Amino acid sequence: MPVVVLLDGLCRVDPGEPVLRVDDLGVLRGESVFETVRIAGGRPAYLEAHLTRLGRSAERLAIDLPAGWTELATAACEGWTDAVLRLVCTKGPVGQPGVGFALVTEIPDDAVTARKGVTAITLTLGVGAAQREPAPWLLGGVKSTSYAVNMASLRHAHDLGADDVLWLSSDGELLEAPTSTVVLVRDGVLVTPPTSVGILAGTTLKAVLDLRLAPAEVRRITAAELTNADEVLLLSSIRGVAPVLRLDDRELGLGPMGALLPGAFEAALQY
Amino acid sequence: MPVVVLLDGLCRVDPGEPVLRVDDLGVLRGESVFETVRIAGGRPAYLEAHLTRLGRSAERLAIDLPAGWTELATAACEGWTDAVLRLVCTKGPVGQPGVGFALVTEIPDDAVTARKGVTAITLTLGVGAAQREPAPWLLGGVKSTSYAVNMASLRHAHDLGADDVLWLSSDGELLEAPTSTVVLVRDGVLVTPPTSVGILAGTTLKAVLDLRLAPAEVRRITAAELTNADEVLLLSSIRGVAPVLRLDDRELGLGPMGALLPGAFEAALQY
Repeated sequence: MPVVVLLDGLCRVDPGEPVLRVDDLGVLRGESVFETVRIAGGRPAYLEAHLTRLGRSAERLAIDLPAGWTELATAACEGWTDAVLRLVCTKGPVGQPGVGFALVTEIPDDAVTARKGVTAITLTLGVGAAQREPAPWLLGGVKSTSYAVNMASLRHAHDLGADDVLWLSSDGELLEAPTSTVVLVRDGVLVTPPTSVGILAGTTLKAVLDLRLAPAEVRRITAAELTNADEVLLLSSIRGVAPVLRLDDRELGLGPMGALLPGAFEAALQY
Repeated sequence: MPVVVLLDGLCRVDPGEPVLRVDDLGVLRGESVFETVRIAGGRPAYLEAHLTRLGRSAERLAIDLPAGWTELATAACEGWTDAVLRLVCTKGPVGQPGVGFALVTEIPDDAVTARKGVTAITLTLGVGAAQREPAPWLLGGVKSTSYAVNMASLRHAHDLGADDVLWLSSDGELLEAPTSTVVLVRDGVLVTPPTSVGILAGTTLKAVLDLRLAPAEVRRITAAELTNADEVLLLSSIRGVAPVLRLDDRELGLGPMGALLPGAFEAALQY
């Protein structure tokens, strides 16, 4: 059974019980910020990095983020060993404070199987790689609940029989995936795009790079480089590391990093 | 006092009462569709056009839209003469139906004053004019609650002392405004971009063109044409027609269409 805990008073509510007013701007305008955190070994993994990013997202959406998120995460984790923790803060009705809450659910089966490999397609995000950084209103790098395009991209992939999507810029650069950071492997080096192309700063990416199991480069990546990659990996909090076994029409198979990193990340989560 | 009526049973609820569960995909992922309808003369104006668009948006988001919206709109209008009616349908929690509701509020003062004129700036939307039509996952023309970029664009304008925004494509074409359709006037002709550039089909645009007070052209518009326009107008359900008196650094002032159309549209609403 899922668990819902409110930031206000760390109060537990029945998951079937309504919590949000219809005039909350989080409901009407997708103006909420969120983080999806892995609970591993009973604790929220990389919580500080997630809360830092939550704070940055809130600033960009002009959401006045209340305090108490560490306490909320700790309270929500109680009784769970391995699970999904969502932390959300809405903007609230006009002139009123937002609602902060934690939602804990089980890890979906497909998140576990994804660590053995997924299939993916490339789709354009329509935006240029250099367009979002100088245009802060486009909210590049902000994790808000305005995720309809992310979800529609994934539905499009599923309709075509693929598990996931790699977004390309309109000028043909690799950006990110709808719910993951993308890393490619070339000659044993992990290569991933910089946040200056308008993408989210991946918390799982940072954790994986901190393992120092391979050299890493953060730089802009052309579609041609993606096509010639030895391996492609998708990094996200709940799945961890998911090797891409087929990208568009190309069979990549499981390479050495795809074999090593999913388990290495899972092991690191336990410490 | 705002009024909230649920689609299910046409049940009235206190506006301060929570209605939505935290795991509703409308809450977590901005996967809700909505329409903002003007109540004029006690009736929801152009309701059929709004409901047609609501249905199209729902299809694009894979939301299974329940029936009963006309009855909901009628019930929600009860006791109101001139007001704002929001119709919203969420996607619901995974595997469960969404929540449909109506929210009626007073017309904000700035919507009324906007009919006398607003100031606006141009901002890039980062996307190419021809990028969204062949990429349905980018949700061009869909009215979902994933509106964080719309709201951030308006905040950016307000920070610069302007009232509103005209979005340009990355290749320099006029698109739309965050909550309005854009019409320019050149040599007495109303010119507005086609939906093929990925913009919403404006219900107020259709109503204004149906007045046949001036010839109209629907075609792609360059930023240069916008700069040379005699007049620029913003069309939306609640404000109706808002003449743009200043666009970026250029004083446009009030032209003949800006003087005529706001009142003509308001008059037409009463029939």
